Amino acid sequence: MGRLTGGDPSLLRRINSAVVLHALRAATVSPEGRDPGAGADADRAPERAPDAAPGCATLTDLTRVTGLSRPTVEGVVEGLIADGLVVEMPAEEGGVRRQGRPARRFRFRAEAGHLLGVEIGAHRVAALLSDLDGRPLGSTVREVSEKAPADERLERVRGAVADLLRRAGVSRHSLRAVGVGSPGVVEADGTVHLGTALPGWTGLRLGERLRRSFRCPVLVENDANAAAVAEHWKGAAVGSDDVVFVLAGLSPGAGSLIGGRLHRGFGGAAGEIGALHLLGREATPEEVLSTTGEPLNPLDEGQVARVFALARSGDTRARAAVDRFIRRLVHDVGALVLALDPEVVVVGGWATGLDGVLDPLRDELARWCLRPPQVAQSLLGEAAVVTGALRLALDHVEEELFAVESTVTARRASR
Amino acid sequence: MGRLTGGDPSLLRRINSAVVLHALRAATVSPEGRDPGAGADADRAPERAPDAAPGCATLTDLTRVTGLSRPTVEGVVEGLIADGLVVEMPAEEGGVRRQGRPARRFRFRAEAGHLLGVEIGAHRVAALLSDLDGRPLGSTVREVSEKAPADERLERVRGAVADLLRRAGVSRHSLRAVGVGSPGVVEADGTVHLGTALPGWTGLRLGERLRRSFRCPVLVENDANAAAVAEHWKGAAVGSDDVVFVLAGLSPGAGSLIGGRLHRGFGGAAGEIGALHLLGREATPEEVLSTTGEPLNPLDEGQVARVFALARSGDTRARAAVDRFIRRLVHDVGALVLALDPEVVVVGGWATGLDGVLDPLRDELARWCLRPPQVAQSLLGEAAVVTGALRLALDHVEEELFAVESTVTARRASR
Repeated sequence: MGRLTGGDPSLLRRINSAVVLHALRAATVSPEGRDPGAGADADRAPERAPDAAPGCATLTDLTRVTGLSRPTVEGVVEGLIADGLVVEMPAEEGGVRRQGRPARRFRFRAEAGHLLGVEIGAHRVAALLSDLDGRPLGSTVREVSEKAPADERLERVRGAVADLLRRAGVSRHSLRAVGVGSPGVVEADGTVHLGTALPGWTGLRLGERLRRSFRCPVLVENDANAAAVAEHWKGAAVGSDDVVFVLAGLSPGAGSLIGGRLHRGFGGAAGEIGALHLLGREATPEEVLSTTGEPLNPLDEGQVARVFALARSGDTRARAAVDRFIRRLVHDVGALVLALDPEVVVVGGWATGLDGVLDPLRDELARWCLRPPQVAQSLLGEAAVVTGALRLALDHVEEELFAVESTVTARRASR
Repeated sequence: MGRLTGGDPSLLRRINSAVVLHALRAATVSPEGRDPGAGADADRAPERAPDAAPGCATLTDLTRVTGLSRPTVEGVVEGLIADGLVVEMPAEEGGVRRQGRPARRFRFRAEAGHLLGVEIGAHRVAALLSDLDGRPLGSTVREVSEKAPADERLERVRGAVADLLRRAGVSRHSLRAVGVGSPGVVEADGTVHLGTALPGWTGLRLGERLRRSFRCPVLVENDANAAAVAEHWKGAAVGSDDVVFVLAGLSPGAGSLIGGRLHRGFGGAAGEIGALHLLGREATPEEVLSTTGEPLNPLDEGQVARVFALARSGDTRARAAVDRFIRRLVHDVGALVLALDPEVVVVGGWATGLDGVLDPLRDELARWCLRPPQVAQSLLGEAAVVTGALRLALDHVEEELFAVESTVTARRASR
């Protein structure tokens, strides 16, 4: 609070503006568009006056909801209209008319800007477009070779985005923020500190490269972190603020939310639990799942699926390999649970599409953890990373628009 | 921010009062008493006007530092004097006199109340007394049998505290908060959810039992968590806000700070990494360190020290046992590091008093972690838990006195 020096009038003005915008936005978003369990937003949304017309609010509504004086609310609303964020609704035709001039009604202009979520993976890139309320307006997925060099992968991203914007009829200049989910340890400036899953990824200035294509902020995030955010927003972790999301694959990664906020760690490497076996110089995941003694190819998901299929068909060596794989996964997830003590563990990634991963995980954690968490399967599946990337872009814009918290608690910002 | 409704005058009054008290306190605490690297406090302390007399501040000083108007500052200061938290200093004698009446000077009354830190361990109980600035006024340690039942252990605590207060000449009624560090998973109300290290500890309503002896808030915390807070305050983790403290013993426990705040986990069980080996149904710590095949007695530290001494003297089986023990510790700490990605790992507990734990830990983490943390030995040693318990009591009182943050960001409180 070092910089908060008592009754700062400019701070008050910003608080008031944010509070009014927040009330307006809460009044104008339909229940479908804004999940009531979606954490921080639901907490923050002031109640709408019960008799307010859906989709808009009068000055009287706003005065009641915010506790501000009517002149203050009027001044703030005029400012928001000038900024293009609020519009006055035309007077209702044919509605119930009382004596005198009808009350002016206002709504938040969710169409005043757009947000983009981007996923960059080993086998595909994906993009998701929304308005300022996070309502999806379109999406696209493109395949890409696991061997594609970084330039080719980025070109694929640009193509997918351009196509999506064109189809949705949205101008690139309308984008307010772009969130990107990528494998690897990602630094605050969007550089991939370490990313062995994709060719040419370690050391790539991913944020800088993508910023050339956009005029708005580009936020790059580890893919498991993005997926954790997505499951919290509209997936298996809605309503819980202490979440570990496990991106279960040959080598698992994880993202975690603590008190509803992404925990990145001091150097952005939190949750990279796949390295745990290295400490004991144990077998690599590729060796664990091998039925022949030859390590599997880490990028060949088909090979892995075949081992699981063989195990299902009764093959003893495949069964043993799968058991080893599950035991390793349970150990890795157990380590995360003991370290973090989350309320919910959400399991996603390809391993959840294979039989028999979830039940042993649930059983073992229930048996051995001091306080076993709930274990749930990802609800968003393949869409988790791109959805989380979009949510991060939305978070960024909300912080700008509803800047009360970031104003007052700026010194807490971890990144 | 749901409850913050614009320019609330009572909120403003509280902010102003906190800001003034903060400025006064920053002006009156000597550099020795307030470590400049001690995290949140250092951040929050407003700068003292360069020409202010040390130890006190004038209304002009306070007006300049806080940015508040002079009448506001005067009103706040009068209120604080009435509360006994501030006192007007007598006019200086023999000092430089200017024309007219000398400026009134005020100081924070750190002696207006006292704080107590308490440690409850397997072999000893300890207590530490301070004033409202956290300046130590006395301490005491008493031995207790590892087999002592809960009642006897609590009686030992009460005796130690009574003796300490008497020796320091401090009345029990002057205590504003008591912090307690104890082994086990501790719930928010101070009940020990699980505490196998001490007889009769699981299910003990420790907070409730101790509250009978005090008229002030009693805050019970897991011992490793308390130690993490202490090392951050005045130990090996000063200046770092992302810390894992490992209480290294036969079965390690850990406490962690994330962004300078204690991370307790959803159910208070975060950091209980000693259970990790259970997930793989691996050997217990007592078996790992055994040289005979017979498990060690987990409460007998002498037995453990003998194994380490034997290893030093060249005994092959003891050396192998110690190697197994260190490998296990490295794995457990590695799991914490991968999950949390701290800046610093501080190792305390009895194992640090034994040879050869720290170097292999440092080497292995540096070799295998994606972003290796610094590894430091506890600076506070045996005093870590009781010091952290005192700091938690101080945090509690500061939140009451300097309530800006807790007022504005109450909905963020994790517990």
